[in-house]
Amino acid sequence: MTAPDVERAAGPGSLDPLFDPRSVAVVGASDNPEKWGYWLASGALTGRHRRAVHLVNRRGGALDGTPFLPDLAALPSAPDHVVVAVPAAHVRTVVADGLAAGARCFTVITSGGAGADEERALASLVTGHGARLLGPNCMGVVDTTAELRLSWGDFQAGQVGLVSQSGNLALEIGRLLARAGQGFSRFVSLGNQRDIDAADALEALIHHEPTKVVAAYVEDFRDGRRLARALAAAHAAGKPVLLLTLGRSEASGRAAASHTGALVSARATVEAVCRDAGALLLDSAGEVVDTALCLLAGAGTHRRGADARRSRVAVVGDSGGQGALAADAFAARGLDVPALSEPTRAAVAARLPAGAGCGNPVDLAGAGEADLDTYARIARTLLCSGEAEAVVLTGYFGDYASANPAQEQHECAVAARLADAAGESGRTLLVHTMARDTAALTILRERGIPVYERIENAATALAGTVRVRTTTPVPPADGQPPAAEPPVTDGGYRTVRAMLRGYGLTFPDAEFVRDADDAVRAARRIGHPVVLKAMGLAHKTEAGGVALGLRDEPALRAAFAVMHAVTGAAEYAVEAMATPPDAVELIAGVRRDPAFGPVLMAGIGGVRAELLGDVVLALAPVTPEHARDLLRSLRHAPLLAGWRGAPAVDLDAAAHALCALARAAVDHPELAELEVNPLLVHPGGALALDAHAVLAPDAHTLPAPTERPRT
Amino acid sequence: MTAPDVERAAGPGSLDPLFDPRSVAVVGASDNPEKWGYWLASGALTGRHRRAVHLVNRRGGALDGTPFLPDLAALPSAPDHVVVAVPAAHVRTVVADGLAAGARCFTVITSGGAGADEERALASLVTGHGARLLGPNCMGVVDTTAELRLSWGDFQAGQVGLVSQSGNLALEIGRLLARAGQGFSRFVSLGNQRDIDAADALEALIHHEPTKVVAAYVEDFRDGRRLARALAAAHAAGKPVLLLTLGRSEASGRAAASHTGALVSARATVEAVCRDAGALLLDSAGEVVDTALCLLAGAGTHRRGADARRSRVAVVGDSGGQGALAADAFAARGLDVPALSEPTRAAVAARLPAGAGCGNPVDLAGAGEADLDTYARIARTLLCSGEAEAVVLTGYFGDYASANPAQEQHECAVAARLADAAGESGRTLLVHTMARDTAALTILRERGIPVYERIENAATALAGTVRVRTTTPVPPADGQPPAAEPPVTDGGYRTVRAMLRGYGLTFPDAEFVRDADDAVRAARRIGHPVVLKAMGLAHKTEAGGVALGLRDEPALRAAFAVMHAVTGAAEYAVEAMATPPDAVELIAGVRRDPAFGPVLMAGIGGVRAELLGDVVLALAPVTPEHARDLLRSLRHAPLLAGWRGAPAVDLDAAAHALCALARAAVDHPELAELEVNPLLVHPGGALALDAHAVLAPDAHTLPAPTERPRT
Repeated sequence: MTAPDVERAAGPGSLDPLFDPRSVAVVGASDNPEKWGYWLASGALTGRHRRAVHLVNRRGGALDGTPFLPDLAALPSAPDHVVVAVPAAHVRTVVADGLAAGARCFTVITSGGAGADEERALASLVTGHGARLLGPNCMGVVDTTAELRLSWGDFQAGQVGLVSQSGNLALEIGRLLARAGQGFSRFVSLGNQRDIDAADALEALIHHEPTKVVAAYVEDFRDGRRLARALAAAHAAGKPVLLLTLGRSEASGRAAASHTGALVSARATVEAVCRDAGALLLDSAGEVVDTALCLLAGAGTHRRGADARRSRVAVVGDSGGQGALAADAFAARGLDVPALSEPTRAAVAARLPAGAGCGNPVDLAGAGEADLDTYARIARTLLCSGEAEAVVLTGYFGDYASANPAQEQHECAVAARLADAAGESGRTLLVHTMARDTAALTILRERGIPVYERIENAATALAGTVRVRTTTPVPPADGQPPAAEPPVTDGGYRTVRAMLRGYGLTFPDAEFVRDADDAVRAARRIGHPVVLKAMGLAHKTEAGGVALGLRDEPALRAAFAVMHAVTGAAEYAVEAMATPPDAVELIAGVRRDPAFGPVLMAGIGGVRAELLGDVVLALAPVTPEHARDLLRSLRHAPLLAGWRGAPAVDLDAAAHALCALARAAVDHPELAELEVNPLLVHPGGALALDAHAVLAPDAHTLPAPTERPRT
Repeated sequence: MTAPDVERAAGPGSLDPLFDPRSVAVVGASDNPEKWGYWLASGALTGRHRRAVHLVNRRGGALDGTPFLPDLAALPSAPDHVVVAVPAAHVRTVVADGLAAGARCFTVITSGGAGADEERALASLVTGHGARLLGPNCMGVVDTTAELRLSWGDFQAGQVGLVSQSGNLALEIGRLLARAGQGFSRFVSLGNQRDIDAADALEALIHHEPTKVVAAYVEDFRDGRRLARALAAAHAAGKPVLLLTLGRSEASGRAAASHTGALVSARATVEAVCRDAGALLLDSAGEVVDTALCLLAGAGTHRRGADARRSRVAVVGDSGGQGALAADAFAARGLDVPALSEPTRAAVAARLPAGAGCGNPVDLAGAGEADLDTYARIARTLLCSGEAEAVVLTGYFGDYASANPAQEQHECAVAARLADAAGESGRTLLVHTMARDTAALTILRERGIPVYERIENAATALAGTVRVRTTTPVPPADGQPPAAEPPVTDGGYRTVRAMLRGYGLTFPDAEFVRDADDAVRAARRIGHPVVLKAMGLAHKTEAGGVALGLRDEPALRAAFAVMHAVTGAAEYAVEAMATPPDAVELIAGVRRDPAFGPVLMAGIGGVRAELLGDVVLALAPVTPEHARDLLRSLRHAPLLAGWRGAPAVDLDAAAHALCALARAAVDHPELAELEVNPLLVHPGGALALDAHAVLAPDAHTLPAPTERPRT
C-alpha cells in the first residue's frame, strides 16, 4: 500500500450548490427508463417548482414536457449544479462547458475509461475555477429537505444523512429505513472522491439541521486524521456517525483492490479511531438502520457520569420464553437487566393477574391478550419507575388486529398510549414484535418508537447506541507537527535506545562493546548480574543473541564466547539485569498506517502474548490520560491493578512510557515501525528492556501525516 | 436448585394418538373468537374430513354446523385424543371421563390453579391407564402432515418440527418461517411436561419422515442425559436440532424462576452438551428460522473428512461494497472466502465487462442490471467450479420488477435458472437481497433457495449449518452405572488424593505428618526439596498453608513453625517438590449439574486462570479420545503442542488424567464437586499437585444420574 494521494487540489467552494442549487442541469438526460439519464432527469424534475431544471441531450428529445437542449451553452441562464451522465470521452468537454457557463458544482456519474490521472486533471480543472466536484463514478446526490434528487433510486425522506462509497449499499440502507418508516435527509454518493471526500460530506451533514443521525460507508480513508476529526465533530454535534467499512477479512481486501483503487485501512486501526472519535463501527446495512432508529428515539442519553454506560433495561414479554430470550440478548451485549425494586415489583403485580412474572423480565402470561390496555399500563409503570433507561416490549403486540380486525381501533389506541408513556417519561421504549406492517406498528413508528422484527437487532441497536452516546471522544491530536529531530538512520537497539531515552524512556544501564575484555570491564562498572546481547540481529533471542543473569566474570566470558561463535555479531550490549518484583511484561509499538499515520499499540507481553492477543490501539501521539485509559481497557488490566494480592504497577509510569514512544514516532516520520518489547512495568516504574525500529522504505519522501498539505 | 422430579411416571403408550388420532374431542369448545375454545374447536374441525371431531361444552351450542355435546359420555364413539380447555377445577373430571370413554391421549391446555402435586396426580391417572398426557399448561399440538390442528395460532405447513415450552415463541417462529415460505410439519407445545417431555417429543420428530429439521425451545432439561441422547439421535437421523434455551444471564434465570417452576441449567453446560450431541444452540427465533432454511437447502453436507469444517463460500455482489461486507460477514463467522483459481477467475471475467471484480467476492459492477442473465451465468460458474460449497448472491436481485414491472417475467426466469444451477451443481445457493416478497423471490423460495433480508443472518445461518452438519457427535455415555466404590466421607486432600490415585492419577510422593520431627523424617525419605502443606484449610495458599521448595531440614523446620503458628492445622503433607521442565498448569474438575449430572471441566490454570477463562466442559465420563479433543479445543492449546520451541506436553497423559477424574466423579455421586488444581502436564506425563472435593449436601439421597429410574 502506498500513501494516499495527497496532491489533489481540494476546491475552496461551499457545498451549498451541491445540496440546494439555484438551478440544475442534467447532461445526458434520457426518456428511456432503462437509462440512468432517465432517473437523473426525472429526479431533477421533482424539484422544478423550487429551482430551474435544464435537461441536456445533444440528440434532442423531451421528458415530462421539458425539452432536451443540445448543450450547456444553449441554457437560458447559468446552471448552478451540473449532473454529468455522458460517455467517459465527453466528460471533460461537458465540464468545461459547464464552467464556462458559470456552474459552481458538478456531479459526475460517469465511470470507467478515465484513469486516475485524467480524474485528477478533471478535479483540478473544476476546483481551479472555484467550483466543486462530486465523483466521478458516483451515484449522485439527494437532499430530500431541499427537494433535490439527482440520483438513481427512490429514497424516502427522513432524518438520516448518508455518505457512501457504494451506491447499492445506499439503496439497501434506504430500503431498510423505509420499511421502518424512516429515510434520508441527505445522501451523498462519494464515488472516487477526486474533490469532495468523505470528510467534506460528513462536515456538510453535521451542519445540516434536519439531519439527526449520520451514517457512512467508507472504503478509502484517504486523510484518515481529517476523517477522524470529522467523526469527532459529528459526535460533538450530537450526531454520532454509524460507520461501515470493509477489511475485516482478507477477502474483502481483495474486493477493495478491485474496486475504485481504494486503500484498505487495517480494521483494528479503524476500530480504535471510531472508539476515540465517538463513532460506531458497524458491520451491515441492517445494523446501521437498527441503530439509527434507536439513536433517533433518544436512547442512551438518559444517564450521565459514572453510571452512564451501565444502562438499565426492563423487559416486558408476552411469554416467559420471549422475555427470557430478550433479557439474555440485552445482557449478552453488556446492558444491565436488573431486578426490580420491591415497590416497582408490587406496582407491576398490582396490574397483573396471579401467575404473571413481576421481576425483570416481566411475563404478562396472557394478561396482554386478555386486556390490551395491560401493555400500556405495565410499560408506563416501568418507564416511570426510574429503574430503567429503556423498556423493551417483546412478543405479540401489534398483531391483535390481524387475527381479529375488531381489535384494530383498540390496539391503535394502546400504541398511542405506549408512545405517550415513552414521551412523558423521557425514557426509551423499544418494541420487538412478530407483527409486520400493521396499523398499530405504523402509529408506533410515526411516534418515534423503534420497532424490530428480531429481538437481537433491538439489543444490538440499543447496546451500540448507549456505547456511542456515553462516549467522551478523544479526537486525534491536531496541529502538532513533528519536532525537528535528526532522523534515525538505523533501527538497531543502540540507536533506538538512545533516541527513546531522549524522550524520557528508562532503560537499564548499558554499555556497548566489541570484545570480551571490554564486556568484562563494562560489567564491573555496571555491576553483576548482567545481560549480554548481540547487536544487529533481527530475532536476537531465537538466534542465541541474548544471555541473561550472568553472575560473574567467568559466566560473562563464557556467554560471550558462545554468543560470538553463534552469531558472529560485531557489537554487544552489556546491561544491568533488571528483575523488579511484581512486574508485568507489556509490549508497545508504533506502526505507520498509510491513511492514519502513526498508530500506537500497547498490550500484554511475555511468551504467551500472541496467544492472548490482548492489545489496544490509538492514533499517536497520546496524552498520559489517554494512555492510562488504554491500559485500563486491556482484558488483562487486572494484572496491572494488583492481581491476587500483588501490589499495583506504576500505571502513570507505564502511561508516560507509551506517550514517549508515541511522541517519538510522530517526530520520526522516517520510521515505519518502532517497538519496545518488553516494556516491564512494576510498582516502582516502567523499564524498557529492548527496542528496535524499521525504517520506512520511502522515508525520505513522506511528509509526516500531521503536516500533510491541506489546501 | 434441587434435583429434577424423577418420580414422574412416564406413560408407556405410543404418541400416535397425539399426532394422528382416529378421533378428537375438544372439551370446552366455544363459538366466541375471543376464547381459546373457539380456536381449538375450529382448528380441530379443519381435520374433520379425515377423523371424527367431537366438540363438548356443557352449556351446549354449535360451531360451523357441529353441535356441542354436553360431556364426553355423550360421544357416539370413543375419543382417541381429548383436548381439555376447561377451568382448572374441572380438568380431573374431564380426564377421568375421557379415560372411561377409552381416550388414549390428552392435551391439557388449562393452566393455573393446580399445583405440582395435583399435576403429578393427573399424570399418574392418565399414564396408569396406558394413555399419554401433553401439558398441562400447554398451547396444544399441530401436525400439518396429518391435518391435525389442536392449538391456538394459524401455522403454515412445512418441513420444520418444533418442540417448545413457550407458545408465544412458537408463534414467532411460525410467523418468521411463513415469511420465508416455510412452516411446521409438527408443533408440540410442552407446557409443564408432566408426562410427554422434550425428549419424548424430539424422538417423535426424529421418526417423522416429513419433518426434515427439528427446532426446540426448552427451559427445563429434567433428565438432561436422556435429552442429550435424543439430540444425538436426531443428528444421527440427519435432523440436527436447533435449540433455544434461556440462562445466558442472571435476568433470564429470574424469568425461569417465575415460569412453570423450571430449572435453569447453566448455559455453559448446555453449550457443551449441544456441541457433543451435534445440536446447535442458538439465541433467537430468527436464528432458528435462518438456520432451518439453510439446513433445508442441504448446506454443510458437501464436504467430508478433514476439509469438512473448512467450508468455502463464493460471494457475488451487485456492488463492491455489498460484496465486501458479505465476504467479511462470512469470514468473521469462520467460513473460508478463498481467492478463486486462475481458470475460474478467467471464466468469470469472460462473462463480465471490464472493470468488474472477478476475484472472490465477484463484483458485478452493474453487469447484473445491464443483463439479468448475468446473475445466473455467474452463479452457475461458481456453483460448478468445485471451489465453493456455497455461493452467496448479495444485493439487488429480486427487485428489478419493482422498479420496472416489464422485467418481471425475465427476472422470474433468471430466478428459476439460479435454482436450476444450485440443484444441478449439488451445492448451496444463498440469496441476500434488499427486495421483499416479490415474484422472483417466491420462485427462489419455492425452489428451496434460502433468501435473507440481512447478510449477517445468511452468514450466521450458514456457519451454524456447516458446524452442525460436519460434527461427529460424542453422545453421553450410557449404561455406565457408578462402580460400587466406598463413598468418600471428607473432601480433604489426603482422602481425595488416595481415592484419585486409585483411578490412576499421579501425585508427587507424600507423607502425612502431625509434627515437625515427623515432617523432617518424611522429608528424608522423600528427598529434599520438599513442599509442606497444611491440611483441613479451604484456601491453603491464601491462608499461609503452603511452603514450596524447602531445600533442607532447617528450612523445613522454619516453615513448619510458621505454618503451624499461622494455620493451627493438625495435619500436614510433606511432598516431593515437582518441577518438571516445560510444564503447563491446567485446572480440572467435575461439578454435578442438577439436570445433566457430573460435568467435567478442564482449562488453563495458573495465577491468571480466572483472567483467561479458557475452559472446556463435557459430560462425565469421557473417553481418552474425547478428553484429547477437549484439550485441543482450548484457546491456549498451542501451549500444549509445544509453544515457541518448547517440547509438546504428554497429551495422552493429560487426557488420561481427565478421564480418571471424570470416572471418579461418576463413581462417587456423594461428591458435588471434585477438583485437581493444578494438574501439571509436561513432556513426561501429568502430575496432580493438589485436589479436593465438596460433599453434596444431599449426597445420601441422590442416585447418580446414570442410574436414575427411567420407567
